[in-house]
Amino acid sequence: MTDRTAIIAGSGSLPAALVAASVDAPLVCALDGFDPVGLVPDHRFRVEGLNLFLDWLQERAVTRLVFAGAITRPRLDPARLDPGMARFLPVLAGALQSGDDAALRAVIGLFEGEGFAVVGADALAPELVPGPGLLAGELGERDRADAGRAAGIVAALGAVDVGQAAVVQQGLCLAVEALPGTDAMLAAVAALPANLRPDPVRGRGLLYKAPKPGQDRRIDLPAIGPETLQNVASAGLGGIVWEAGGAILLDRERLCTEAARQGMFLWARER
Amino acid sequence: MTDRTAIIAGSGSLPAALVAASVDAPLVCALDGFDPVGLVPDHRFRVEGLNLFLDWLQERAVTRLVFAGAITRPRLDPARLDPGMARFLPVLAGALQSGDDAALRAVIGLFEGEGFAVVGADALAPELVPGPGLLAGELGERDRADAGRAAGIVAALGAVDVGQAAVVQQGLCLAVEALPGTDAMLAAVAALPANLRPDPVRGRGLLYKAPKPGQDRRIDLPAIGPETLQNVASAGLGGIVWEAGGAILLDRERLCTEAARQGMFLWARER
Repeated sequence: MTDRTAIIAGSGSLPAALVAASVDAPLVCALDGFDPVGLVPDHRFRVEGLNLFLDWLQERAVTRLVFAGAITRPRLDPARLDPGMARFLPVLAGALQSGDDAALRAVIGLFEGEGFAVVGADALAPELVPGPGLLAGELGERDRADAGRAAGIVAALGAVDVGQAAVVQQGLCLAVEALPGTDAMLAAVAALPANLRPDPVRGRGLLYKAPKPGQDRRIDLPAIGPETLQNVASAGLGGIVWEAGGAILLDRERLCTEAARQGMFLWARER
Repeated sequence: MTDRTAIIAGSGSLPAALVAASVDAPLVCALDGFDPVGLVPDHRFRVEGLNLFLDWLQERAVTRLVFAGAITRPRLDPARLDPGMARFLPVLAGALQSGDDAALRAVIGLFEGEGFAVVGADALAPELVPGPGLLAGELGERDRADAGRAAGIVAALGAVDVGQAAVVQQGLCLAVEALPGTDAMLAAVAALPANLRPDPVRGRGLLYKAPKPGQDRRIDLPAIGPETLQNVASAGLGGIVWEAGGAILLDRERLCTEAARQGMFLWARER
């Protein structure tokens, strides 16, 4: 038996998109309390019984793991701890008290220490993480300039661990992603009074997404889907640009069809 | 006659606050089309007749100028150009095509070239730009940590010329200022769903403001006033922190009284 893969699923639609696009059929495991949309997990596990979950994976000859979907920091209930958890507790307790990135690195390290390979979504479904290229629409000079400006802004933001996205139109930064996320940012742009919006004739503006500089690309890549596109359209922008290899496309086919239909661009831009 | 001062007023309430707090009585000059709130200008001028304005200032023995209030880029109407404007046109035309910071630097240089000293609001009204210190309320350990995190974020944003403010609560960046400005950012925080807000018991969060790194502090310092405080309160935050010497307080007395009454902090933090 070779390289059997399991997805460790959080909430949202990414796990289902990943299963749909996978070249082989992965097992789906969900952390208790986090429900992937449109998928019935093969297995559920609790943090307090992580050792039992590791046994379950090993019994099924799983060798590769992919983390997909949103998981907020779970709380550890001491009363439910499995006795076999003792050896994991120091790492786990430390991880739960660290910042997001450090916590994820610790959890990945824990799985790797047990012999699993932790890989990115692109290893399972390469088409979800496209390399450089224009996937829909056309780009003008102004759009390319806006994308360059936005990439600089998102890199600066990522360096201070704030967000993974920004909206730029004609060189002006209309919004920057913080904790509330991309959809909240786009709603704020949609609600901007007209006198604060540049004249669309001279450049329609765009949403730009990229991972943080130095981020482990196996986890927490920004995602772009048909809903994102709809929100970008509602915000009166011309399209979406992202760092090539640095964002996951949800439902790529529908995304591209819809963008083409609305005359919007989708561009995986080389860093 | 020594050091007579003129304020070059844009829109908003800063010019009136500056006049009220000035140690001597400055002349108020307004660019045509920009109305300071609560002030009747001593003189109005047009960009096309800048030479006449310079003469006017010199006749009144004005030696110091302070720029105060918001001025959006004026358009130059060639039909209205005064013949005496010829020698200023190359600098002016260049300035009007530059980015905001470069345009302001060019305009300042133009006035300096004519022998005027361009000074900051603090030269006229030192109490409007307070040095380090706690002006109202009390700070906890958590508030100090949030202020440090926010200062790092605003510095990173300023370096890419995005904004001069951010909201941080318990280490989490809830919002970042972009084109729409501080009040729009605070309104977005006020509208955040409760499940995205950290538990206020563990830190109430704050608004932080600072000029951009390397910014000419004679112009465009961020302003904080009673209205800002009200918006900060509506956003459920604990207070306002700013870079000491890097923000202008509008109506300082009312601001401090109001903050004390609401149990909110006002802290000019040393960089």
